[in-house]
Amino acid sequence: MKIGGRETRTIVLAADGRAIDVLDQTRLPFEIVWERLERLEDVVDAIGTMIVRGAPLIGATAAFGMWLAMRQNPTDPALTAAATALVAARPTAVNLAWAVRRMVRVIAPLPLHLRAVEALREAKTIADADVAINRAIGVHGLPLLRAALGRTGGERPVRVLTHCNAGALATVDGGTALAPVYAAVAAGVPVEVVVDETRPRNQGASLTAFELREAGVPCVVVADNASGHLLQMGDIDLVLVGADRVAANGDVANKIGTYLKALAAMDARVPFYVACPLSTIDLAIRDGMLDIPIERRAEREVTHVWGRNEEGVVVEVQVVPDGVSASNPAFDVTPARLVTKLVTEFGVIDANEQAIAAVFVGPPS
Amino acid sequence: MKIGGRETRTIVLAADGRAIDVLDQTRLPFEIVWERLERLEDVVDAIGTMIVRGAPLIGATAAFGMWLAMRQNPTDPALTAAATALVAARPTAVNLAWAVRRMVRVIAPLPLHLRAVEALREAKTIADADVAINRAIGVHGLPLLRAALGRTGGERPVRVLTHCNAGALATVDGGTALAPVYAAVAAGVPVEVVVDETRPRNQGASLTAFELREAGVPCVVVADNASGHLLQMGDIDLVLVGADRVAANGDVANKIGTYLKALAAMDARVPFYVACPLSTIDLAIRDGMLDIPIERRAEREVTHVWGRNEEGVVVEVQVVPDGVSASNPAFDVTPARLVTKLVTEFGVIDANEQAIAAVFVGPPS
Repeated sequence: MKIGGRETRTIVLAADGRAIDVLDQTRLPFEIVWERLERLEDVVDAIGTMIVRGAPLIGATAAFGMWLAMRQNPTDPALTAAATALVAARPTAVNLAWAVRRMVRVIAPLPLHLRAVEALREAKTIADADVAINRAIGVHGLPLLRAALGRTGGERPVRVLTHCNAGALATVDGGTALAPVYAAVAAGVPVEVVVDETRPRNQGASLTAFELREAGVPCVVVADNASGHLLQMGDIDLVLVGADRVAANGDVANKIGTYLKALAAMDARVPFYVACPLSTIDLAIRDGMLDIPIERRAEREVTHVWGRNEEGVVVEVQVVPDGVSASNPAFDVTPARLVTKLVTEFGVIDANEQAIAAVFVGPPS
Repeated sequence: MKIGGRETRTIVLAADGRAIDVLDQTRLPFEIVWERLERLEDVVDAIGTMIVRGAPLIGATAAFGMWLAMRQNPTDPALTAAATALVAARPTAVNLAWAVRRMVRVIAPLPLHLRAVEALREAKTIADADVAINRAIGVHGLPLLRAALGRTGGERPVRVLTHCNAGALATVDGGTALAPVYAAVAAGVPVEVVVDETRPRNQGASLTAFELREAGVPCVVVADNASGHLLQMGDIDLVLVGADRVAANGDVANKIGTYLKALAAMDARVPFYVACPLSTIDLAIRDGMLDIPIERRAEREVTHVWGRNEEGVVVEVQVVPDGVSASNPAFDVTPARLVTKLVTEFGVIDANEQAIAAVFVGPPS
């Protein structure tokens, strides 16, 4: 991705080779600050405080955290302690536990003197694999945007509605839901992205709008309430969102509000696509509506909003009267019947049990 | 309504009988400030700057503005000038033009020395009629809440989802969408209101939450994105919203985002009711989807949010990065097929052409 005109990833090896540098996502979009993480503790903090966020990026960051831990102390007790601390940093993030398990499997059999160097090699592999997966999602998703352009007659750019941030910032690079958008831009397909603000945490307004601006992709931010009207009026050609977890039956858990967009897309007969690497599909969950637990987050995310004040300082303001409480479910489940297709690194598939099972037969686990 | 424990209306005659006092709605929910309006110019300003807002309240305020104008100068040119200035204060508000026309019809035939006193009498009549209409909406809506309580088995309060502010603050008193809620509370029916934040202007979080708190009605604020999930989970028993304009075919124009709630209510088989005095029904609009124009408002309402900072000062903060634009449609149209019933002062009716035409045959125009 581009930030400040410079090509980069969200996480990079420090110039001295002794740490990682991560983009501090709590400071975006108003400040571009890189944070140097030298020790396991720094990585645990960065994940816990959401300096890094987005399931794929959290996984990669944790992998580098295991490397830093092995540099500090390569013994077995230290390995176990590092794994435990990282997994506990964001207990609900599936990719986090997956990446840590993968690192432990690689590190544990090795003699102590090889552990750090092999951990770094494996962490780099995980990061590179994330980028490759996202590139593949882009390749498979591009024809969907070309088809939408054909339907509009090419008289205006393809208008893609997205929700939250499933972009480059949520990954090492490339994004999931935005990967087909970046692929389209690279292929010369004219695209405009309509970005849901995504209250309560405003990831659309702050992160998606930021990365699209940096990439030079035309975009416009709308209140979450506006997307139904825009779909109804024919102003949107396709909806493209990410997923936190996809059930074996194709039900999709994603950021709160995704379900409302899916309903409006269905009502307007506009395709609703979910970009999801296979690592997001949880075959252990047979029925997403029944079995995916929905996290409730702090009331303060609803009662307060942060932004930049007139003096240029980022502050939080209260928007709900004193004494009134808030409820804050963080995710919702979009039933498979509202999902037009899933866009994976292995191709575009139907959101149903048969199609999902079939894609798992082919590739290596 | 109650404010600070005291029974009041949003607009009252000043104690000295020479002005009106209005609650400044731009200062809510953090400051309760009454504004004294002594002259026509004060009223024009109060409407234009949204110190008073809500179609019924704007109409009543304009009526009192005509009285103040007649106190200043009761001549025919002054009458015409006052009417013109008031109507221009918020050109899109239907009730404003209606109330001013009604005042002119009453005032114009009178000799100059009677104009002020008769204008005051008529303005009071308009204000009292608004309260009576809302009380009737409450009476007709109450059985819908009782029925919902029956469906829940009475094991928890009836949970009503509402959007924006169609409460007492939008009217002289009593509210439209909230009238049945207040009627239910008065009748001892346990109610809890789930309040959509209602971005971009946050009327739910600031105004609806405020007036429900003041009235002692249990409520909880949610991000606009959350309502679909709550409906899906069975956490909402009925949806009750107001309307800016209802077409002859039952299509409903209301605050942006209303359509998304209607879709989710339909998907969850939860009733979706629209409270609308007959003055909101525009028989000249045959098809709401085709013929109701949708106002686009300033980008700044999306790119900025106001609230109270840590020092207790109300400020505006920017939430969208520099250089990124916003789109801000202010209303959307909910097709009649998604509307379970319309709740009017003459009873609960179907949202279709026949039922709407029938209700206009009975009452005097």
